Amino acid sequence: MYVIITYDVGEKRVNKVCKKLKEYLTWTQNSVFEGEISKSLLMKCMYELELIINKEEDSIYLYQVPNPKNIKKQVFGQERNFDELFI
Amino acid sequence: MYVIITYDVGEKRVNKVCKKLKEYLTWTQNSVFEGEISKSLLMKCMYELELIINKEEDSIYLYQVPNPKNIKKQVFGQERNFDELFI
Repeated sequence: MYVIITYDVGEKRVNKVCKKLKEYLTWTQNSVFEGEISKSLLMKCMYELELIINKEEDSIYLYQVPNPKNIKKQVFGQERNFDELFI
Repeated sequence: MYVIITYDVGEKRVNKVCKKLKEYLTWTQNSVFEGEISKSLLMKCMYELELIINKEEDSIYLYQVPNPKNIKKQVFGQERNFDELFI
């Protein structure tokens, strides 16, 4: 399935969440990751993220599109690449 | 159709992009908007956004899911609300 994950987490946890998501998905932009992933790996990923975040303060949005053919992506302006994240 | 729009734009243009998207979609989190929208309104929205952004520096990602039944959304942690954006 295709997933998009966006997060808004406390400063102390941003790097941990980002690193964790990078294990499973592709970085898109700011706090957005996306990619194809199996259901079982997605469950593992979300379980691990739940161990990192503070549920009282942080927020993670998960969008699942079971068939990747049903989602179309377009970029306006510049396409970001992951290295820029660390400039 | 259902759309998710994420943006990463220069500081000077953040408010303009945010206000424009709020005319058409629902704010989700950070620089993420989403919602159901007709194809013609979406074209209008993207046209207006293109007039605001600097294509050499800014970046807008548009994800379209023609049938909203094909996308499932889950929130982990806190669900954000728009008013927090201005605190």
